Amino acid sequence: MRKIIRSRSKKRGLPPGTPVYIGEEKPEAAKITVMDYDGDQFLEKQFEKVEDCFQFKDKPSVTWINVSSIHAEKSVRALGERFGLHPLVEEDILNTDQRPKMEDFADYIYLVLKMLQWDGDKGEVAIEQVSLIIGSNFAISFQEREGDVFDPIRDRIRAGKGRIRKMGADYLAYSLVDAIVDGYFMVLERLGDKIEAVEAELISSPGPQTLHEIHRLKRESLFIRKSIWPLREVVHGMGRAESSLISDATSLYLRDVYDHTVQVIDTMETFRDMLAGMLDTYLSSLSNRMNEVMKVLTIIATIFIPLTFIAGVYGMNFKNMPELDWPWGYSMALAVMAAVAVGMVFYFRKKKWL
Amino acid sequence: MRKIIRSRSKKRGLPPGTPVYIGEEKPEAAKITVMDYDGDQFLEKQFEKVEDCFQFKDKPSVTWINVSSIHAEKSVRALGERFGLHPLVEEDILNTDQRPKMEDFADYIYLVLKMLQWDGDKGEVAIEQVSLIIGSNFAISFQEREGDVFDPIRDRIRAGKGRIRKMGADYLAYSLVDAIVDGYFMVLERLGDKIEAVEAELISSPGPQTLHEIHRLKRESLFIRKSIWPLREVVHGMGRAESSLISDATSLYLRDVYDHTVQVIDTMETFRDMLAGMLDTYLSSLSNRMNEVMKVLTIIATIFIPLTFIAGVYGMNFKNMPELDWPWGYSMALAVMAAVAVGMVFYFRKKKWL
Amino acid sequence: MRKIIRSRSKKRGLPPGTPVYIGEEKPEAAKITVMDYDGDQFLEKQFEKVEDCFQFKDKPSVTWINVSSIHAEKSVRALGERFGLHPLVEEDILNTDQRPKMEDFADYIYLVLKMLQWDGDKGEVAIEQVSLIIGSNFAISFQEREGDVFDPIRDRIRAGKGRIRKMGADYLAYSLVDAIVDGYFMVLERLGDKIEAVEAELISSPGPQTLHEIHRLKRESLFIRKSIWPLREVVHGMGRAESSLISDATSLYLRDVYDHTVQVIDTMETFRDMLAGMLDTYLSSLSNRMNEVMKVLTIIATIFIPLTFIAGVYGMNFKNMPELDWPWGYSMALAVMAAVAVGMVFYFRKKKWL
Amino acid sequence: MRKIIRSRSKKRGLPPGTPVYIGEEKPEAAKITVMDYDGDQFLEKQFEKVEDCFQFKDKPSVTWINVSSIHAEKSVRALGERFGLHPLVEEDILNTDQRPKMEDFADYIYLVLKMLQWDGDKGEVAIEQVSLIIGSNFAISFQEREGDVFDPIRDRIRAGKGRIRKMGADYLAYSLVDAIVDGYFMVLERLGDKIEAVEAELISSPGPQTLHEIHRLKRESLFIRKSIWPLREVVHGMGRAESSLISDATSLYLRDVYDHTVQVIDTMETFRDMLAGMLDTYLSSLSNRMNEVMKVLTIIATIFIPLTFIAGVYGMNFKNMPELDWPWGYSMALAVMAAVAVGMVFYFRKKKWL
Amino acid sequence: MRKIIRSRSKKRGLPPGTPVYIGEEKPEAAKITVMDYDGDQFLEKQFEKVEDCFQFKDKPSVTWINVSSIHAEKSVRALGERFGLHPLVEEDILNTDQRPKMEDFADYIYLVLKMLQWDGDKGEVAIEQVSLIIGSNFAISFQEREGDVFDPIRDRIRAGKGRIRKMGADYLAYSLVDAIVDGYFMVLERLGDKIEAVEAELISSPGPQTLHEIHRLKRESLFIRKSIWPLREVVHGMGRAESSLISDATSLYLRDVYDHTVQVIDTMETFRDMLAGMLDTYLSSLSNRMNEVMKVLTIIATIFIPLTFIAGVYGMNFKNMPELDWPWGYSMALAVMAAVAVGMVFYFRKKKWL
Repeated sequence: MRKIIRSRSKKRGLPPGTPVYIGEEKPEAAKITVMDYDGDQFLEKQFEKVEDCFQFKDKPSVTWINVSSIHAEKSVRALGERFGLHPLVEEDILNTDQRPKMEDFADYIYLVLKMLQWDGDKGEVAIEQVSLIIGSNFAISFQEREGDVFDPIRDRIRAGKGRIRKMGADYLAYSLVDAIVDGYFMVLERLGDKIEAVEAELISSPGPQTLHEIHRLKRESLFIRKSIWPLREVVHGMGRAESSLISDATSLYLRDVYDHTVQVIDTMETFRDMLAGMLDTYLSSLSNRMNEVMKVLTIIATIFIPLTFIAGVYGMNFKNMPELDWPWGYSMALAVMAAVAVGMVFYFRKKKWL
Repeated sequence: MRKIIRSRSKKRGLPPGTPVYIGEEKPEAAKITVMDYDGDQFLEKQFEKVEDCFQFKDKPSVTWINVSSIHAEKSVRALGERFGLHPLVEEDILNTDQRPKMEDFADYIYLVLKMLQWDGDKGEVAIEQVSLIIGSNFAISFQEREGDVFDPIRDRIRAGKGRIRKMGADYLAYSLVDAIVDGYFMVLERLGDKIEAVEAELISSPGPQTLHEIHRLKRESLFIRKSIWPLREVVHGMGRAESSLISDATSLYLRDVYDHTVQVIDTMETFRDMLAGMLDTYLSSLSNRMNEVMKVLTIIATIFIPLTFIAGVYGMNFKNMPELDWPWGYSMALAVMAAVAVGMVFYFRKKKWL
Repeated sequence: MRKIIRSRSKKRGLPPGTPVYIGEEKPEAAKITVMDYDGDQFLEKQFEKVEDCFQFKDKPSVTWINVSSIHAEKSVRALGERFGLHPLVEEDILNTDQRPKMEDFADYIYLVLKMLQWDGDKGEVAIEQVSLIIGSNFAISFQEREGDVFDPIRDRIRAGKGRIRKMGADYLAYSLVDAIVDGYFMVLERLGDKIEAVEAELISSPGPQTLHEIHRLKRESLFIRKSIWPLREVVHGMGRAESSLISDATSLYLRDVYDHTVQVIDTMETFRDMLAGMLDTYLSSLSNRMNEVMKVLTIIATIFIPLTFIAGVYGMNFKNMPELDWPWGYSMALAVMAAVAVGMVFYFRKKKWL
Repeated sequence: MRKIIRSRSKKRGLPPGTPVYIGEEKPEAAKITVMDYDGDQFLEKQFEKVEDCFQFKDKPSVTWINVSSIHAEKSVRALGERFGLHPLVEEDILNTDQRPKMEDFADYIYLVLKMLQWDGDKGEVAIEQVSLIIGSNFAISFQEREGDVFDPIRDRIRAGKGRIRKMGADYLAYSLVDAIVDGYFMVLERLGDKIEAVEAELISSPGPQTLHEIHRLKRESLFIRKSIWPLREVVHGMGRAESSLISDATSLYLRDVYDHTVQVIDTMETFRDMLAGMLDTYLSSLSNRMNEVMKVLTIIATIFIPLTFIAGVYGMNFKNMPELDWPWGYSMALAVMAAVAVGMVFYFRKKKWL
Repeated sequence: MRKIIRSRSKKRGLPPGTPVYIGEEKPEAAKITVMDYDGDQFLEKQFEKVEDCFQFKDKPSVTWINVSSIHAEKSVRALGERFGLHPLVEEDILNTDQRPKMEDFADYIYLVLKMLQWDGDKGEVAIEQVSLIIGSNFAISFQEREGDVFDPIRDRIRAGKGRIRKMGADYLAYSLVDAIVDGYFMVLERLGDKIEAVEAELISSPGPQTLHEIHRLKRESLFIRKSIWPLREVVHGMGRAESSLISDATSLYLRDVYDHTVQVIDTMETFRDMLAGMLDTYLSSLSNRMNEVMKVLTIIATIFIPLTFIAGVYGMNFKNMPELDWPWGYSMALAVMAAVAVGMVFYFRKKKWL
């Protein structure tokens, strides 16, 4: 089971602003990709050392530095120093247990986001932290693992299609956020499919595993919610930021992303309501079935218990039992039994149990 | 079952502002209706090509262009270019999974609404997206399917009755929104009828199908809620918009529509409370019945089990059982049994079970 | 059962601002009462035609026109034209399914309120819509049916006691609203009595009819809530209105009415909490009782089932059963049975079931 | 049982601003206590007639007039006239069913508070209304019954210790409010004790009376909440009042009282959560026990029913039953029975029921 | 069990601003530690008398006075007088039942916080009140007991590493708050471990003790919540305080602490949702099991009860029972019984009970 909170014990007692990685897995070697472009020219390179990309800082063209799989404290610190990041930002980049947030430092904007991806193998949502630094002519992104969610953006930059090559670093940052939010819809679709599958199972053949699945989905949606709600504020804040780093044209696009996050939240809430409703359905179908079981037991028992008693009476060994000697005794006993059984059946009919 | 969210897989990785239709069914050929009027004259035409209606753009009279069944990306793009729409607006018009919203672009206002109609065949609510573009002297409406909800407005324009011919495009837009909200009341009425029918069934003869129906109605109301709540903000925003496109006279009418949406929401919330109450009633009536079943079983069993035991005792085959030889043994045994039975009945009377 | 929402089918497709009556019952002939007064003089008249009261419009004295049982669209339209009402106001007066609201048209204020009265015969609350038009020197009230809730105000005007004769139309309007809110307390008292009666029944002898009654009261309170909550905003808005039609002295009184509506809401919420608590009590008392029933069954069954088994064993007809021939066999069998029974009783004592 | 709302029938139809006492019990003769003090001198007197204390109005020293047990409409009206109170204030003082509130009339501030005291005899909370009038150099307090909650303040005034003698009427008013809020803590302590007692009972020996007690406490907390929540607004409003009657120094103290009321509310909410949790615990312990009862019954019944059946088979009187004649028939039958019993026990072990 | 609220009876009737200790345990002798430092020099001393540290007040270097285990009213009063604290602050420092809050007195800021620590022995959270006074060049902290949560800060001051020695008293105060909030994460980790342990138990072998543990954790989280929620406001207020005592540089750090508190609250809410979900799971697993128990009972009983009845019939002692004399009577009876049993099994198969 996924840990609910990541251990921070390593960090205990360290002075604030000390960058320490607290993520789950030891990251592999960092991979640094740089894309540098403007309307006319375009350049793409991969580096192993973070220092190699410092040259792009002062070029007027837009530079996108993507650090996938955070290498170690050193790289982040080196980048931070060169690009003038606040020590707390360096700390937050490595502290992969952050809540999504936006912080506006006059020179740059710092964003923390959660990237969601459906992990088909485990059948659960994988959450990864993405940090973005947006400067006047550069954007730096930090990922926990290599992922392909940014690939379409790379393709668009390479192809030089659409607006992206003509616009600044803020539009690039918007595109990254948009790609992340689009990823949410993929996850919601998968979750929606799962919910519908469980719902179908609930109607056809509910069982303890259905209950188990409902609870698992509730829990999964609990985790997604925790990432989505603050995202909304973040995107809202970005769109309305008074920072000169975000142009008006891009603000318009950010409003569109904002609408998408609200839609994601809406869908998530609908899922939650549906899951709650499914739990109710399950429990009441359980009660229904229990009721039916009880009725069968009661009908069988209340019909046969009196009959068995009558049989018991005439099984007694008293010397003096005149009925036993009557020639029609046996037939009469059977007749009485039949009468009792029929009477019971009528009673149940009246009670609408049959 | 209706899909909870529509698949956006088609859109994945496309640059933002790319208009792609994601609706459920492949739309038939687009049908474009144009009404052009002012206080004096009136003109109504149907076109197959979107380009044919471009001539109306610069006429001073009010023009209403209705595009029913969104044809293809091409028509929307052509219209958008001619009327100067933002690429994101074009995208949103085709993306029929939008949340209701209003956006004020200085030159025009963009509205997304959900039109609800009761689908009598499926016994559920059909949701359709309607987009409105409100300009200074034109209004463009986009529907997913052809519907008759706007027919009364067409009739009023044709007849030249009422205010509509004397007022501008903003009043026309208001009339369209009003017609859509009026449609909500029709849906609520039907839903109300269904709820009352289920409520009556709940009192007369509740069964598993009642439970099923309650859950279906809860779910239906969940979907309607999702459309209605944002609508309120939209209409509120429209009525208080500082845009010069909405005149003060029309604002007054919009306040009236706002009151209606609040009333729709109120009624919807009442429905939800009632459905929750009905679920409670169902579950407690189930418990009640279970209780009654248990009582019958308990009464029968606790009366006859001891009697059967007594009969069993005198059915034993011991040689030396003096009672068996007594002349009044049998009668006494029966008397003891009767006494036990009567005692039990008194006990149950005291417990108020009988 | 009362319809949850009134049918608006009649109105479908009509242009907005068309006054159509949608109430439940065909109203009898309208009754128009006019009271015209100032500090010195007083005049009271009844009219059958709405036109007869137009003469009072321009008199400087305060005029109260009460239209009980809304006659027909004609009267309202005539009044509306003469007093310069907006078409939407005329429509709302007749549309008796309005949500309570206040609207400030510079020349007059329009109020919609719900008057509640306890219908002793049906044992439920009767809801009636009252519309108020407050002008500079007149107030017009529209009622669905004739009621006596305004009679004390008439008496005070006639008697010339208190402040009412010395103050303006705004104070008159305040008095009418105050009378309506006072009526709410009467309804709450009755509802409170009912709740206490059901609560007593719940402790002494709960049964399915108790449950039914609780649900009925919950439902009743649902309807009252729907009328009360918006009322609060209305009275609040009135007291803080920047309209010159409401004097400062009257604002003070309106703040008092506001306190009353808050108190009504508080009491209503307490009722709701109590009803929810009563439902819980009912359900857990049901569980308690089921538990007790089960215990009795279990005790009887688990004591006698083993005993019956022993009796059954010695009722077998095997040739070779040595115990049967022992002289003390029977006594020993009885002794064993007694021992088993006593052992069971001790076991239940230990389990605290006895 | 305490009445949920006090009857207002007496007030029905009276003009607003008519002071009528609606409290539960006919108050005894009013007792009027006056304390007049400044830094140097101090005077304490008791009067029977309200007119006797009018002399203090214009003295520059601070005067505290305490009217315990509201005598009759007359005294309040006399005081009101002399001190220039608004008729609505006079009405509210006597109308002991008010919601706590603060009203700022330029010349004086009017406060309504609820004094809570634990009634040990009835084991419930006694609620009493206290009204305060705060003027520039006087404070008037109205109590429903004589109480000792203000005694410590009297002692401090008499002793001339602390700040009270050096400060104005606003500090006196603060002291009174502080004393009332301190009383809330006493009530919370008692309620907390009760809750802990019930909680202990819930673990050791839960029974129907535990459930009853939980519901009683829930109800009690419902009533307290109704008094506490508005109190918070009142104290907040007082501390932030722009009135010149409240000095800055006193505002600081009022902020302290505000913190206390927030703490009272917090504790109250914790109590509510705990009570809700206790109800859950009770219900699930009930289910647990039912489950255990059912298991015992099922184990006993499923072991012995098959055995009894076997015994029944060999108790049949067929002529031709070869087993009966076998010499080891009886022993074999017993062996089969033992095997069935042991098999059942193993089955239950596997199911973890034993 | 921990007392829900601490008794304030001692304080009853005392004038406000009287410092009285109301904590649980009689504190040991106070321990006063002073650290005085600036960028260049550093001094650390322990005192027994509070007066010994008065000398540091007017030194320009930063002074941190830590009073662990609040000695008695005297020390606090002496400190308060020397450092010019408001009497209400003195009272609040000793009143260890305060709600977390921040108060800005122009000369100093007063903070109340709750320090949480996991008490491994009792397996519950220990809550301790910490008060902070922040002046221009000093910070005073009051603890209930000696703890080691501030030790890392002492080490950093001693070592002269990081920013702390270069910055003012506001940064010191921030460091203390940060250390306290870091402690919350430790507590959350432990709580998370407990929740996961209980969750595992819930799936493998749920029992009454699981339920008990869930309720204990719910209660524990209730207490933590009560401390955390107000903390958020406190830290928010501090970061946005307009006081000149907090520099802009420190404000940035406080925003970071604020993010941490929000994260703590988020995690706490997730815990609550998970615990609620676990309770649901427990209850429905209980219902599931009950259902299974009932099914076993019903199957056994409904199969054997009819068979036993048949055996009973042929155990009757009527003279004239022709079947008994048939040579195949016994075999036929057994065959009928087998047929009934098989029929029953088929019936249960059809019902999907087997």
